[in-house]
Amino acid sequence: MTSYKLTYFDIKGLGEPIRMLLSILGKDFEDNRIPMASWSSRKSEIKWGRVPVLEIDGKEMYQSHAIMRYLAKQAKLAGDNDWEAYEIDSAAGTIADLISLYIPIWTLDGKSKEEFKQKLLNEYIPSFMKNWNEQAENSGFLANGKLSWADLMLYGFLETLEGKLETEIVNEYPNLKLGREKLRATPGIKEWLAKRPNTPW
Amino acid sequence: MTSYKLTYFDIKGLGEPIRMLLSILGKDFEDNRIPMASWSSRKSEIKWGRVPVLEIDGKEMYQSHAIMRYLAKQAKLAGDNDWEAYEIDSAAGTIADLISLYIPIWTLDGKSKEEFKQKLLNEYIPSFMKNWNEQAENSGFLANGKLSWADLMLYGFLETLEGKLETEIVNEYPNLKLGREKLRATPGIKEWLAKRPNTPW
Repeated sequence: MTSYKLTYFDIKGLGEPIRMLLSILGKDFEDNRIPMASWSSRKSEIKWGRVPVLEIDGKEMYQSHAIMRYLAKQAKLAGDNDWEAYEIDSAAGTIADLISLYIPIWTLDGKSKEEFKQKLLNEYIPSFMKNWNEQAENSGFLANGKLSWADLMLYGFLETLEGKLETEIVNEYPNLKLGREKLRATPGIKEWLAKRPNTPW
Repeated sequence: MTSYKLTYFDIKGLGEPIRMLLSILGKDFEDNRIPMASWSSRKSEIKWGRVPVLEIDGKEMYQSHAIMRYLAKQAKLAGDNDWEAYEIDSAAGTIADLISLYIPIWTLDGKSKEEFKQKLLNEYIPSFMKNWNEQAENSGFLANGKLSWADLMLYGFLETLEGKLETEIVNEYPNLKLGREKLRATPGIKEWLAKRPNTPW
C-alpha cells in the first residue's frame, strides 16, 4: 500500500488543502505537524527549508501549489480542460498574493501588530474578497462554477486568517459563505473535518 | 487572427518567459511595457493591481504562473504526464520563492541596499542556485531532463537579477550555464532574443 506523510506546521494554512485532498482521495496519511516553536531548528533539515512537504512512499514532494495540483488531478478537481485549469491556477495565484501580504502578522507585536491587523481588515482583505465573491457568483466556487483545489486552498487559508484575526471574514461575502458550506459537506472533506485535530488557526 | 497583448513592466522578469512562449508558438503580440515610474498611477486600473496581464482577443488573463502554464501546454513545455507536470510546477515554485526574497532590492537605497545585495549574493541566491544546478545535471534543465516553462521563468528572472546586481550569477553554475546556452539556441527564443528591446534588466 502506498504511504503518505505530510509535514507541515500545526496549523491549517497551506497544509489543510493537502490534508483535504488526501481525504477526498481516501488515502490514509501520517499528519506530521512541526510545532512553530521548533521550526528554526528543523528548517535546515528540510530541502529548500520550506513546508509543506509531502512524502509518497518516501519520495519527497515540494511546493504547496505543485503538490495540490498533482493530487487535485487525481481527485478531478483541477479542471476538465486547459482553460479550466488556467482559471483554477489563476485563482490560486491570487490567494497566494494575499497570503504573501498577511505573513507579517506572525512576527509583529503590540501596536505595530494592531496597526497591521487594521490594514489587513480594512484594505488588503476586502480588495481580494470582493473579487473572489464576484467570481463565486451562482456556484459559490472560485473557478468554472464548480469545486476545485483553489477553493480548498482559499478555505484552508481563510480559517487560519480568521483564527489569527479573531473574526469571521467569510460571513460578509455571501457567495464565499455558500462555497464554504458546500465544501464542508463534500464527501471526504466532511469526514476529515469531523476527525481533524482542533487548532485555533 | 487571434490577437495577443502582454502588459508588464519594461523589464525581463516575469514578462520575459511569456514573451518567449508566445515567440515559440509563433504568435505576434503587442508588447505593452509600463514604465516603472508610472506604475503607481496605473496600478488601480488593472484588476488585482498586478502584472503581467495577457489579453487574448481582449480577454484578460492574470497571474504569471497560470499564464505561463497555459501557454506552455500549447508549446509542449509543461510535461508529458502528471508527474512531469508536478516536477515543473515544483521548480517554478522554488523560483517564485527566490523572487519573493529579492523584491526589496527595488525599494532599498544606500547602505541598506548594499547590505541587502550582499545577503542576496552570499546567502539567498547560492542556496537556491546550488539546488537548481544539481537538478539540472546532464541536461542543463530544471525538470525531467528537458526544456520546460520553469527554465524560461528562471532565465527571465536571472537576467533581471544579474542586471540589478551587475554580476553574472549563472557562470558559477555549469549545469545552469549549459541550460541557458541551450535555451538561447531554441527555435523561437533565438529569434526573440535577436529582436527584443534592449533593457538593462
